Amino acid sequence: MIKRYEKGTRMSQAVSYGGLVYIAGQVANDRKAGLEGQVSDVLAKIEALLTEAGTDKSKLLAVNIFLPNILDFEAMNKVYDAWLDPENPAARACVEARLADPDLRVEMTAVAAL
Amino acid sequence: MIKRYEKGTRMSQAVSYGGLVYIAGQVANDRKAGLEGQVSDVLAKIEALLTEAGTDKSKLLAVNIFLPNILDFEAMNKVYDAWLDPENPAARACVEARLADPDLRVEMTAVAAL
Amino acid sequence: MIKRYEKGTRMSQAVSYGGLVYIAGQVANDRKAGLEGQVSDVLAKIEALLTEAGTDKSKLLAVNIFLPNILDFEAMNKVYDAWLDPENPAARACVEARLADPDLRVEMTAVAAL
Repeated sequence: MIKRYEKGTRMSQAVSYGGLVYIAGQVANDRKAGLEGQVSDVLAKIEALLTEAGTDKSKLLAVNIFLPNILDFEAMNKVYDAWLDPENPAARACVEARLADPDLRVEMTAVAAL
Repeated sequence: MIKRYEKGTRMSQAVSYGGLVYIAGQVANDRKAGLEGQVSDVLAKIEALLTEAGTDKSKLLAVNIFLPNILDFEAMNKVYDAWLDPENPAARACVEARLADPDLRVEMTAVAAL
Repeated sequence: MIKRYEKGTRMSQAVSYGGLVYIAGQVANDRKAGLEGQVSDVLAKIEALLTEAGTDKSKLLAVNIFLPNILDFEAMNKVYDAWLDPENPAARACVEARLADPDLRVEMTAVAAL
């Protein structure tokens, strides 16, 4: 059965099916926050969606990270590394890409097991 | 069982396995069409591949959208929003990325349930 | 059961679950190699991870390719086309994106069936 979470008119923030949950591109609520604040916010939003879907960050399978400025890579990693479950790191990719709002410093998608 | 649809020498346009179908990056057939025409074409191609795989847009789980010019975001959304099944919006991410042909204005990948 | 391969402190190079394996963004070991050398290296690393997870390139479902310079598209394809299993091409997408290290010429992620 397909379940959709935080369903809006354009997208669901998460969709689960067949033992997996797909997390939509998460961006910071406070778009004027600095890089570290935005990364923390995005990770908190992913964690909340995982909880809502009945899972948690130890079950993350893959994470895709988009940075409008790839020079933010190390600063993003510092926050990410402190957040992840060190016993259960996801497969990850991080590339540079401009985002829908020029104030956004990071966007992440993820797939997790239920 | 893995099934491959519209199989070419370089890629399959869709591949299904284990209750999921992965749609390859779809681009417009008419590369001289405007943004709206290209988005419509891409969405029609996704819909045709979903049909071929035995599913439909109400079962889309996740969609990734690449725009060479992120300023096309709102114009793309207008076409996308009119196309989607409003009861069943997918998890979505949209970022800026240049594409293989400079005439292309949009490329989309997707994962759907069968 | 979730299995993590080549597990580091930040990421796993591959994570399998429920009949699928997710390959993290693979980049060349020799970052001073040319485009062709880097593509070959990335594909060899994907192949090794697939082997480690108990599968192979004939079971690739989807591949995402990131090129910092989209003008490398044809040269990348030449190596990719020679490498893939012609009976079993994956769904594929390729877009331009700058990578974490400016010497890197290509990064690829993938999903395969087990």
